[in-house]
Amino acid sequence: MASSSTFSLYQSLVVRSISPQSANSSTDRVSLSNFSSLRSISSLSSSFHLTRAVARLPRRISSSVRASAVETVDKTTENSLVEKSINTIRFLSIDAVEKANSGHPGLPMGCAPLGHILYDEIMRYNPKNPAWFNRDRFVLSAGHGCMLQYSLLHLAGYDSVREGDLKEFRQWGSRTPGHPENFETPGIEVTTGPLGQGIANAVGLALAEKHLAARFNKPDNEIVDHYTYAILGDGCQMEGVANEACSLAGHWGLGKLIAFYDDNHISIDGDTEIAFTESVDKRFEALGWHVIWVKNGNTGYDDIRAAIKEAKAVKDRPTLIKVTTTIGYGSPNKANSYSVHGSALGAKEVDATRKNLGWPHEPFHVPDDVKMHWSRHIPEGATLEAEWNAKFAEYEKKYTEDAALLKSIISGELPADWEKALPTYTPESPADATRNLSQQNLNALAKVLPGLLGGSADLASSNMTLLKMFGNFQKDTPEERNVRFGVREHGMGAICNGIAHHSPGLIPYCATFFVFTDYMRGAIRLSALSGAGVIYVMTHDSIGLGEDGPTHQPIEHLASFRAMPNILMFRPADGNETAGAYKVAVLNKNRPSILALSRQKLPQLPGTSIEGVEKGAYIISDNSSGNKPDVILVGTGSELEIAAKAADDLRKEGKAVRVVSFVCWELFDEQSDAYKESVLPASVSARVSIEAGTTFGWEKILGSKGKAIGIDRFGASAPAGKLYKEFGLTKEAVIAAAKELC
Amino acid sequence: MASSSTFSLYQSLVVRSISPQSANSSTDRVSLSNFSSLRSISSLSSSFHLTRAVARLPRRISSSVRASAVETVDKTTENSLVEKSINTIRFLSIDAVEKANSGHPGLPMGCAPLGHILYDEIMRYNPKNPAWFNRDRFVLSAGHGCMLQYSLLHLAGYDSVREGDLKEFRQWGSRTPGHPENFETPGIEVTTGPLGQGIANAVGLALAEKHLAARFNKPDNEIVDHYTYAILGDGCQMEGVANEACSLAGHWGLGKLIAFYDDNHISIDGDTEIAFTESVDKRFEALGWHVIWVKNGNTGYDDIRAAIKEAKAVKDRPTLIKVTTTIGYGSPNKANSYSVHGSALGAKEVDATRKNLGWPHEPFHVPDDVKMHWSRHIPEGATLEAEWNAKFAEYEKKYTEDAALLKSIISGELPADWEKALPTYTPESPADATRNLSQQNLNALAKVLPGLLGGSADLASSNMTLLKMFGNFQKDTPEERNVRFGVREHGMGAICNGIAHHSPGLIPYCATFFVFTDYMRGAIRLSALSGAGVIYVMTHDSIGLGEDGPTHQPIEHLASFRAMPNILMFRPADGNETAGAYKVAVLNKNRPSILALSRQKLPQLPGTSIEGVEKGAYIISDNSSGNKPDVILVGTGSELEIAAKAADDLRKEGKAVRVVSFVCWELFDEQSDAYKESVLPASVSARVSIEAGTTFGWEKILGSKGKAIGIDRFGASAPAGKLYKEFGLTKEAVIAAAKELC
Repeated sequence: MASSSTFSLYQSLVVRSISPQSANSSTDRVSLSNFSSLRSISSLSSSFHLTRAVARLPRRISSSVRASAVETVDKTTENSLVEKSINTIRFLSIDAVEKANSGHPGLPMGCAPLGHILYDEIMRYNPKNPAWFNRDRFVLSAGHGCMLQYSLLHLAGYDSVREGDLKEFRQWGSRTPGHPENFETPGIEVTTGPLGQGIANAVGLALAEKHLAARFNKPDNEIVDHYTYAILGDGCQMEGVANEACSLAGHWGLGKLIAFYDDNHISIDGDTEIAFTESVDKRFEALGWHVIWVKNGNTGYDDIRAAIKEAKAVKDRPTLIKVTTTIGYGSPNKANSYSVHGSALGAKEVDATRKNLGWPHEPFHVPDDVKMHWSRHIPEGATLEAEWNAKFAEYEKKYTEDAALLKSIISGELPADWEKALPTYTPESPADATRNLSQQNLNALAKVLPGLLGGSADLASSNMTLLKMFGNFQKDTPEERNVRFGVREHGMGAICNGIAHHSPGLIPYCATFFVFTDYMRGAIRLSALSGAGVIYVMTHDSIGLGEDGPTHQPIEHLASFRAMPNILMFRPADGNETAGAYKVAVLNKNRPSILALSRQKLPQLPGTSIEGVEKGAYIISDNSSGNKPDVILVGTGSELEIAAKAADDLRKEGKAVRVVSFVCWELFDEQSDAYKESVLPASVSARVSIEAGTTFGWEKILGSKGKAIGIDRFGASAPAGKLYKEFGLTKEAVIAAAKELC
Repeated sequence: MASSSTFSLYQSLVVRSISPQSANSSTDRVSLSNFSSLRSISSLSSSFHLTRAVARLPRRISSSVRASAVETVDKTTENSLVEKSINTIRFLSIDAVEKANSGHPGLPMGCAPLGHILYDEIMRYNPKNPAWFNRDRFVLSAGHGCMLQYSLLHLAGYDSVREGDLKEFRQWGSRTPGHPENFETPGIEVTTGPLGQGIANAVGLALAEKHLAARFNKPDNEIVDHYTYAILGDGCQMEGVANEACSLAGHWGLGKLIAFYDDNHISIDGDTEIAFTESVDKRFEALGWHVIWVKNGNTGYDDIRAAIKEAKAVKDRPTLIKVTTTIGYGSPNKANSYSVHGSALGAKEVDATRKNLGWPHEPFHVPDDVKMHWSRHIPEGATLEAEWNAKFAEYEKKYTEDAALLKSIISGELPADWEKALPTYTPESPADATRNLSQQNLNALAKVLPGLLGGSADLASSNMTLLKMFGNFQKDTPEERNVRFGVREHGMGAICNGIAHHSPGLIPYCATFFVFTDYMRGAIRLSALSGAGVIYVMTHDSIGLGEDGPTHQPIEHLASFRAMPNILMFRPADGNETAGAYKVAVLNKNRPSILALSRQKLPQLPGTSIEGVEKGAYIISDNSSGNKPDVILVGTGSELEIAAKAADDLRKEGKAVRVVSFVCWELFDEQSDAYKESVLPASVSARVSIEAGTTFGWEKILGSKGKAIGIDRFGASAPAGKLYKEFGLTKEAVIAAAKELC
């Protein structure tokens, strides 16, 4: 990462380049303002209205002043500019959707007041360094309303959303895609749009803050100290993943999580009366949240402000502020109807709305006074960061060791030689289930990786995920690193995405039975898309789990993740391969990994290695010469042993047999043609694979003439050994297939 | 289906053969008792205790008697046999788990009282005809506790769970698998185990009852009239899918749904305090449920009875009865701990439990008095069914037309010539999006299929799923057939599984964007596994949806479902193919179908046909002879048009080109080798595919030498046309690839 400032270490900790798809995020780096520009802008802004004069002061000092100012100042003056700003947000959104002829104007129009108050009055951020560590996090869980956030980022002075970007809304190559994408737009924390994910990400962000604060804050220096805000709509509220995550947020007492429920009573199918008549307030109270209702979210600005103040005062519980708004507020004919939810207003209605709200300006216009009003955020953000840097310098002097740890979490830089902590195994090491070997790796890594934390969806003792040197992350012990997710797979995955996106050095892992990736696939896909390096520890990875039967036995899951872009699907065969999988997973900060691990014991195989895993597929044994084996036997995970045993027998019969472990297809795809040829020579078409899962996709490895041994039906309830025999996953089957081919 | 009785039509409507995997369910058919055996058994049972004397009477008549009997009879006598029965249930469960050395004894031990009361005192069923239409439905959502239900089915006299079956718990080929599987065990309604699914299935069962009752009941004849009971544990309560479904149950006012929450405070990771401290009672009140708490579920039998009575009295809301129990009740050293949740007790603790509960019997023993006590359910069930048959005969006389419709819903028999309702198209028919063509099919089918009902997860106007001749299924209009699921994909899928398993003639469909199958994959997999013929209407099936961007654009989804067993993945290209997909989907009562449908307009292609779709893949155009084209172009869905256009151009250049539509891979797999060879001759290796999705898996069709054109990365936000061009999904790309190969 290029450093762009000499101001301090931390301004160089900028937006990490996130996914292979986002090549140019590095252009949006820090360009730090200095104090003179800060002064000049605040003196200008003070000419507009009284309360804004405090903008000159650093935000921390001014907050109490502003609180009283809100109550005492001439509200007419204040409100007229606020309203102008709010209408600017509305029309930037309307105009961008109109130009794209695609998008969702309704939410930005209804939530503009809330958006204004959050980004202009409440949140602490530095527009010129969207990656400043101690910034408040904001998540638009109702991601379809992204023009709200783009408008706010634009007004606040983020380089990622300039006027040109607004005009390129939803166009090829733009930084303003149709839903918020962190890998496209610095200033966006997480990728939302699939409903319910964002609020669960926000729970993860708030968890990360609470955890880091508990670990690193000192009585004289609260170095970690920010809020997490989220806006969620009716759609998010209906999604189960949101309920899962919010139940945990209540359980954990995430007091600095403040979620706004945009209660507008409209979803795509019309009035929420048709499908959503529960009491959201009561449900959140049941989940242990503090709940506030702002009845007039359209114009009750002070009510919104007061609610936020109250929310901040409640420190032991997260707060839900239900803000009743009118979707499409200001549109005379479409407000409060589903027609304004997901379509452009149309030229005629845009005109009518301009008239209705008294907005004479051309499209994309930001009035000068509004521009000036918002311009203070650039110097103010610089000040906030500078203050924090000074505070960190103090911290570093006094708490050198903790500072170094925190620094590595902020930067994502791994400690030197961390990988030496990985356990190694020899063929003489005892046979063991890869889920147990995984636990050895996790515990070894936890000692050297300060940002490793995670847990299981109520299967810790089956997934083998406990970090033995730590206690449980809980409401009153948030410094601990074992997270207990309960039976909430989807929420777990989405929370881990939030943790991963909080700081580059946080490495969340989470676990359940492999088959239950089906419950959390929405979150896993977002890990892959948004470049969240979550480690998915997925045990009980085949019919080898035995008696629990077909509801618990994955069949199609390996193939289903091999088909997913930007995710590493590992199926390690033993200790060395498990260690190799962890090594690659940790190094892939911007790509998630899934480890499919066995319930049953497996031997430590000769020939396996960490280096082999890094190449995705590699030869573990071979008695051929000249890269011309009679047959290539391919296996993964628990079936690699079967392939190795079949090879032994075939070799006794004089065959030249190569055994290849295909532990991670994606990594093999990335190797050179020469390496691929050295493992799978084109001239050898006699190839047999064995894997306790669907054969779907194996033609890619085996070619048309190869033979895949697998299971193309659902499993059954019986002891594992019996199942392997009945389903024909045997050494004998491999030998028979090999003999047919060579 | 074989008829096994002359008694009435309806006894022959037995367990439908469900999945290809359950070949012998037909052995568990009706073997109807006659009235003489009924008499002899009840006279025996009357010797045991007073209240049981009423068993002789048909249940409908006796229920009020029994209600008062419970209050007046000598409770000591009563309770001693009840307790003996409860302990029988406990020890059958303990013994089966012990013999298998695998399973979950904790729940059956804790819920045995509730199980006894439900199956012995409350529920109306006929053990000799588990498929009797008007039976009460019971769902063990906490499916790991299945020995509870197997014990109850055994005591109640179901042929599917004889003593030998209990001894074969969790063994290969047994009818007592590790979790309840409807396709293995008649008497099990749905397949559970993945937590949260069962309660959502129960919502679907209750929806079906409410809907059919509203459509068919008459003031003088309530022909549809049963309850749906479910037991869910802490795990189910944490799952988002359960909250989604229960929110809908509250919204719909499913008054005949009674769910028992086994509140035992223990999950696999230990005390629920570590991850689950919300107030479940309050949450359910917020969801619109009636909530009752039975504080002593271990021995408070009368409290359980009273709660059920109260629940039945509340008709406008579903009821949650929180029953506080002790997991592993009776085990002196393991009760109330996670160690009794998922492992056999062990010989020593089994002995200790036998001593503690005063149970001197050998394993699997059912005391004679308990056996006798339960034996009345066979004649009583026959009576219940006979009464209902008589009632139906009355109904049929008076309401002939409705009776015929209801009969077809009960039997699953399709009306003659129903498929003639399917719309047909010619190349001259207007171009249209397949999502719109799907709506034409749905509306055409709704006129001829009385059991077709369904809807969308808040995307009805995007998925095009509204049945225009019907209103919305709602609390007060349950006779209607448009179901509004809200933004609850997972709950929607699981509810549809429940509807499908309610009656063979119910054909539920449900809809969202194809990418959001990720949210509901847990339910879709259970459709496939349990043989629920749900039709998944999945629109916006590729980057062709355009501006919403990569969060909304499926890439890996086609492959991920092609890899899943027992499900049909269709991607129709136009009107005829959409009609073909619906025809196959409707005929596959025991196999779910997914239809991936376009947002964008597509032309009606020459050569497409319903018959072609039925074969999975077929030639839509060909200028070759002798089954030897120069090249085969393969397409699906919206890209079939591109393949056809490329073929036109190549033919102009003199090439012999075959175009194949690969609309459903699974159906093609099932064709004869001769047919396969006629479509994809082995001698022709020049094959090019085009599909707007991952190329993963296409080697299966194309062979090693073919070329797949697709998208192996995530999509992007831009207009659809731009995306197709940028991602290289063009006629030119197909032509170039073809020329490289031939």
